[in-house]
Amino acid sequence: MTTLDPRDGHVVLINTFTVKPGRADELVKLLANATDRGIRNLPGFVSANLHVSFDGSKVVNYAQWRSKEDFERMRSSDEFKKHTADVEALIEGFEPVLYELRYSHAVEREGAPA
Amino acid sequence: MTTLDPRDGHVVLINTFTVKPGRADELVKLLANATDRGIRNLPGFVSANLHVSFDGSKVVNYAQWRSKEDFERMRSSDEFKKHTADVEALIEGFEPVLYELRYSHAVEREGAPA
Repeated sequence: MTTLDPRDGHVVLINTFTVKPGRADELVKLLANATDRGIRNLPGFVSANLHVSFDGSKVVNYAQWRSKEDFERMRSSDEFKKHTADVEALIEGFEPVLYELRYSHAVEREGAPA
Repeated sequence: MTTLDPRDGHVVLINTFTVKPGRADELVKLLANATDRGIRNLPGFVSANLHVSFDGSKVVNYAQWRSKEDFERMRSSDEFKKHTADVEALIEGFEPVLYELRYSHAVEREGAPA
């Protein structure tokens, strides 16, 4: 479970993958495994959240990192690089963009602490 | 504060706006006001989360809705339509895509309930 709160000051990566036809589920599995088995242990990792578009053509990773430096260190890590070839086999392209969260408004969750 | 949890079953809109040079802050203010003053009261609204890219060229709204039907009803509402012209004055284009959240992994928050 991931929390979005501008006060946390996290760096947000929104990476949009355009997937080859019918390969979205495989890509989610691959990225989830890469997170569970390694990426989550890298310094500054906060969260990874994988989404599939309703038409199946896109997968988005909404990922939070503690700082831009931590994010960049991850991108040059062996842990990241070893998945690159497997990911590229499933996609037509990807567009990673770094964001800052500025505003968040949510209805209260049932049963959530006030 | 927004929570991302695949078990919630929310529909996720990731709307990427390409903004005119120097207009990102205005767009965030406009979209935040539109949310605070109206959109948040529409049926099925769960959350809106506004992001600005580090290079200032993109604004992303990561928004959660209870269902696809609620999202579509919002898109045809007067509340939504009345902001369209103001938004278009600040942007070069936008790409709204609907997603399903499939996977979420986060480190534990300090002081968060287990």
